Amino acid sequence: MFREKIKVLDCTIRDGGLMNNHKFDLRFVREVYKAISEAGIDYMEMGYKNSKRLFAPKEFGKWKFCDDADIREVIKGIKSKTKISVMVDVDRVDIEDVLPKKDSPVDMIRVATYVKDVDKAIFLANHFSDKGYETTINIMAISRALDNELNEALEQLEKECKAKVVYIVDSFGSLYQETIEFLIKKAKSILKSKEVGMHAHNNQQLAFSNTIEAIIHDANYVDCSIYGLGRGAGNCPTELMLGFLKNPKFDIRPILDVISTEFIPLQKEIEWGYFIPYAITGILDEHPRSAIALRDSDKKENYREFYEGLVGEGED
Amino acid sequence: MFREKIKVLDCTIRDGGLMNNHKFDLRFVREVYKAISEAGIDYMEMGYKNSKRLFAPKEFGKWKFCDDADIREVIKGIKSKTKISVMVDVDRVDIEDVLPKKDSPVDMIRVATYVKDVDKAIFLANHFSDKGYETTINIMAISRALDNELNEALEQLEKECKAKVVYIVDSFGSLYQETIEFLIKKAKSILKSKEVGMHAHNNQQLAFSNTIEAIIHDANYVDCSIYGLGRGAGNCPTELMLGFLKNPKFDIRPILDVISTEFIPLQKEIEWGYFIPYAITGILDEHPRSAIALRDSDKKENYREFYEGLVGEGED
Repeated sequence: MFREKIKVLDCTIRDGGLMNNHKFDLRFVREVYKAISEAGIDYMEMGYKNSKRLFAPKEFGKWKFCDDADIREVIKGIKSKTKISVMVDVDRVDIEDVLPKKDSPVDMIRVATYVKDVDKAIFLANHFSDKGYETTINIMAISRALDNELNEALEQLEKECKAKVVYIVDSFGSLYQETIEFLIKKAKSILKSKEVGMHAHNNQQLAFSNTIEAIIHDANYVDCSIYGLGRGAGNCPTELMLGFLKNPKFDIRPILDVISTEFIPLQKEIEWGYFIPYAITGILDEHPRSAIALRDSDKKENYREFYEGLVGEGED
Repeated sequence: MFREKIKVLDCTIRDGGLMNNHKFDLRFVREVYKAISEAGIDYMEMGYKNSKRLFAPKEFGKWKFCDDADIREVIKGIKSKTKISVMVDVDRVDIEDVLPKKDSPVDMIRVATYVKDVDKAIFLANHFSDKGYETTINIMAISRALDNELNEALEQLEKECKAKVVYIVDSFGSLYQETIEFLIKKAKSILKSKEVGMHAHNNQQLAFSNTIEAIIHDANYVDCSIYGLGRGAGNCPTELMLGFLKNPKFDIRPILDVISTEFIPLQKEIEWGYFIPYAITGILDEHPRSAIALRDSDKKENYREFYEGLVGEGED
């Protein structure tokens, strides 16, 4: 019944960190790592590998930089088969900060890019591949990609890039399942030597179903996050993904436990999930930053005004 | 771009009433009716037409009985093209309580049934059709229906029933899109003279995507509820459905308004939406009653114990 090739990556700490400047304390991250390890999840993404020249360490939590020493503190003493992933953004990483794989606790480096920056992303992925890491390319804001440019980028990735996985990223949570089918089929048809992945956002409550849709059309790498924690509306919930997948190696119970003990209390500190402003930016295929700002303001429930503001801008 | 035959039914007051014994006050129901009317939604379902011999009126709100006089109070003075629907359950309605259509503000009567009770449902639907109402059959708990029995029921509905629409009802919120495709295609292939509808529950955050899936496979009647209000995890959110449908007659803005003014405050009185116990009953294809009871108890966040209790029961 199950497809052994499917790999689950939990990005709770990485995508969730976008909501609190990556200021998760060590205890919390260790609890999450324990739960993910016991659940049998394949990868856990800890955060970003950002340049400390571009971002002041005192303004952010550790997981904006993911120093190897900090990752070692997380995993110390915890029995696990889960691999460690970090994300890098084009133009925000100092490649000399990244040691060869043999000297690092990190297993995989994922390069996040827009279609327009694919050449830079290929350079980074190949560089990290040469250092011994598993690598992926994550194409963000795919809902805004022009079809001819996306085709060209995918062809270039197939020919020039050593990354073994290319992810489709629905950054704005705007896509319906018909477009997921279209994009995954396109990617599979061009990326003959690679796996395809899916990273979905939950603005329209479609993150889980879009990830299932991607699986139906042979995506084998799927992102999820515990209780959906992630930027704005969040991501595909890990607990639902484990309920859906039939691979006997997965166990939903450690995830249920950590939601009870850590994520219910966390809801008092960070707001994420289904809120109308996120639904509106999803429907309108807009970046969620305006919605996040609204939720931080005293107009947080002024939905019509927010909607009118976005549709009223016009574009010519 | 849009399919004119698609009819949207908002069941906020009817399905939401299952969370508060139908005790919505008149002002609230009028605000919802106004919003639905201004949004251009085709039908609004007010509640159930239950026998007052079976249920004591003093224990329930008006919308468990939907007297014509109470419906008239709701719609009085509000400009609207929205038709009024009520639901009846097999064995719970006194048919003599239902006046001929020409004497009632109700336009449509929906008969909710399990597969095993389809003969009783056909009798009721035909009776109400003869009284002049639009009628539908809503097959509940479809995830538990045996395939041969479902086939037989659908064939019987096609041959013997005057209802113009048959709904697939995913009562437990347990179905993934592949099964929705299977069921809608089956229903369409047998019910050649009828329309097919979809009523989804949101236990696994799949109510919206499953309703889209049904539309893709030619279901033309879709249920939704404002801000997803409904039993347990609730239903397909009306605001997302209007964002998806392209019919220019729909306007999302009145729905956004009523969420701001009525549904955000209502969240302090009634709990509905995505909570882990509802996800668990959805994953396990169980009725949500145990999850609703848990959320009312002092063990409301004891997810593992709840899960173990359901999977540990065993069946032989």
